[in-house]
Amino acid sequence: MSRVWNFSAGPAALPLAVLERAQREMLDWNGSGASVMEQSHRGKRFIAMAAQAEADLRELMGIPADYAVLFLQGGATQHFAQIPMNLAGAGDSADYVVSGHWSAKAASEAGSYVRVNVAASSEADGYLRLPPRDSWRLDPHAAYVHYTPNETIHGVEFHAIPDVGGTVPLVADLSSNILSEPLDVSRFGLIYAGAQKNIGPSGLVVLIIRRDLLQRAGRPMARIFRYAEHAAADSMLNTPNTWGWYVAGLTFQWLKAQGGLGTMAERNRLKAELLYQAIDGSGGYYRNPIEPSARSRMNVRFTLHDGALDAAFLQESEAAGLLALKGHKALGGMRASLYNAVPPEAVQALVAFMRDFAQRHG
Amino acid sequence: MSRVWNFSAGPAALPLAVLERAQREMLDWNGSGASVMEQSHRGKRFIAMAAQAEADLRELMGIPADYAVLFLQGGATQHFAQIPMNLAGAGDSADYVVSGHWSAKAASEAGSYVRVNVAASSEADGYLRLPPRDSWRLDPHAAYVHYTPNETIHGVEFHAIPDVGGTVPLVADLSSNILSEPLDVSRFGLIYAGAQKNIGPSGLVVLIIRRDLLQRAGRPMARIFRYAEHAAADSMLNTPNTWGWYVAGLTFQWLKAQGGLGTMAERNRLKAELLYQAIDGSGGYYRNPIEPSARSRMNVRFTLHDGALDAAFLQESEAAGLLALKGHKALGGMRASLYNAVPPEAVQALVAFMRDFAQRHG
Repeated sequence: MSRVWNFSAGPAALPLAVLERAQREMLDWNGSGASVMEQSHRGKRFIAMAAQAEADLRELMGIPADYAVLFLQGGATQHFAQIPMNLAGAGDSADYVVSGHWSAKAASEAGSYVRVNVAASSEADGYLRLPPRDSWRLDPHAAYVHYTPNETIHGVEFHAIPDVGGTVPLVADLSSNILSEPLDVSRFGLIYAGAQKNIGPSGLVVLIIRRDLLQRAGRPMARIFRYAEHAAADSMLNTPNTWGWYVAGLTFQWLKAQGGLGTMAERNRLKAELLYQAIDGSGGYYRNPIEPSARSRMNVRFTLHDGALDAAFLQESEAAGLLALKGHKALGGMRASLYNAVPPEAVQALVAFMRDFAQRHG
Repeated sequence: MSRVWNFSAGPAALPLAVLERAQREMLDWNGSGASVMEQSHRGKRFIAMAAQAEADLRELMGIPADYAVLFLQGGATQHFAQIPMNLAGAGDSADYVVSGHWSAKAASEAGSYVRVNVAASSEADGYLRLPPRDSWRLDPHAAYVHYTPNETIHGVEFHAIPDVGGTVPLVADLSSNILSEPLDVSRFGLIYAGAQKNIGPSGLVVLIIRRDLLQRAGRPMARIFRYAEHAAADSMLNTPNTWGWYVAGLTFQWLKAQGGLGTMAERNRLKAELLYQAIDGSGGYYRNPIEPSARSRMNVRFTLHDGALDAAFLQESEAAGLLALKGHKALGGMRASLYNAVPPEAVQALVAFMRDFAQRHG
């Protein structure tokens, strides 16, 4: 079939221009006579590509020079463990703000390596709003404060970087909203993001860390777990995920060609607004349960007024070329993920389908 | 330029048929209207593909039912740490057989998690031969015995599975020779292999573990490091490297179409024989330093009789469409890697070039 509009929560849509370029270069990348997957990561061609990807990301995000940018293998989940392994010493505690599934999991997985202090949680509210900043019980001696700016499953998002004071490093899992808008990186000690939503294919993590934090002692562990070792080796401590790095680099070029993160922010704002307006304006046919100021721009949850219509909604939407609208199994209902690579036309098509569906099944 | 003959040690050549299929399916995989990279790993299409890849690998290698097959993210290096984390309890020791760079590194990185006993080493021999079996000082109470059947850098290979007795599990890093010949998996407790030599792109590890070993207590650690958790979750404890898994699956299909591992073993034997004969028959113009019974079929080292000719050899070979013959920087000279995806024609072209070069520069 032809290309569909893809609302997958992740692995998610990639820009068509990126896919087309990867397709063109599959047998002969960069005049080498071989695929990018068939190149030594120590070769000149690959090293130049990797460096350009980092430079483009630094330019897009305005990453200060005193931050290292790492392209690591795997997913964000491993860093739920590796962050305390690297940033916390024996006996240290760390503050976790819990605002949904992923931040709860980050706190839980950290527990083998640091004393976890849940500084705030909106679990009792069903994660339908964010924990109010004045409720956070932060420890001035914490090794760091961890939070998740956007919750992919629960569909809540912090729309400003919380102020946690000057001395405790702020750590953020940006897996589902990195590159979706400009960000003041200098406010963070460490940012990490699995690639498979706004960066590229799964199997790659982008991790941005203030260099002074690389000096923290952590604990005895193999070199492969130490951020300082990866930074010293330019993310080539071992063979990196070369394909993931390459596709990420193509995505960064595409973002620059679009006009950068300011352009993406405006586009993403309009996309989310269009969909939330369609939900709110449906007279209760569709509903989003999230407190409006906490609604995610990236992951829009909605339910139908009658759950018995879910199966028909999913079947008809797929037949209309709208992919992956089924909500997470923990919550049911629907979810449309609107990452950078989802164009405005996709949201327009979804909104038109929703109106039509409501009329036909009203 | 057109496709070259690629002798890269890794990331290495992939079968042309695999690349062409990945190219064809880039925009529309499996009738989904989206790339395989854009699919949820929880979706029916991806799960079916992943299960087929595992079934094909089980068939190719004859993996017994009491072994779990895991498709994990990252590279083999992380498992230098994760294996003792999973298989060794507090106070345990493990035996390591050191026969080159990679087995030495495996022993070194394990040291944070287990008492390492170097049971045998050929370091004093410059890794030019294998440590004779009767010199191994194995501990009958070791948590496991680790060895590296093929050393990618030093170019030595075990041509039979060593007998280490009945009770201590044998663990093998098969990164550079998995799938190159039939293997009696039942002789091993655990096999692991980074994908980027004989399986697919970098960023993926195939790990095969006897299920009873999943029950070993190990130590307190995050779930993401536990093989038992990955096995229970069918390697989808977190988002897997979906692209890597897909390309690996295409490679398994290609191997089956070639006739399986028996066919590959014969093809690989002939390829290596052709190159070693050209070296040995060059009247000393080219030399391979490895004790003949330990020579690797996968990674063939050679030096020119006069190191001053190295630059010309590399330049002219590249111009002749022969990629990545430069030896590892630790050893100098040349290295030709002859993994499954390197066809006999590539070795014939290399041998012809070597003869021609020797005549012209004699």
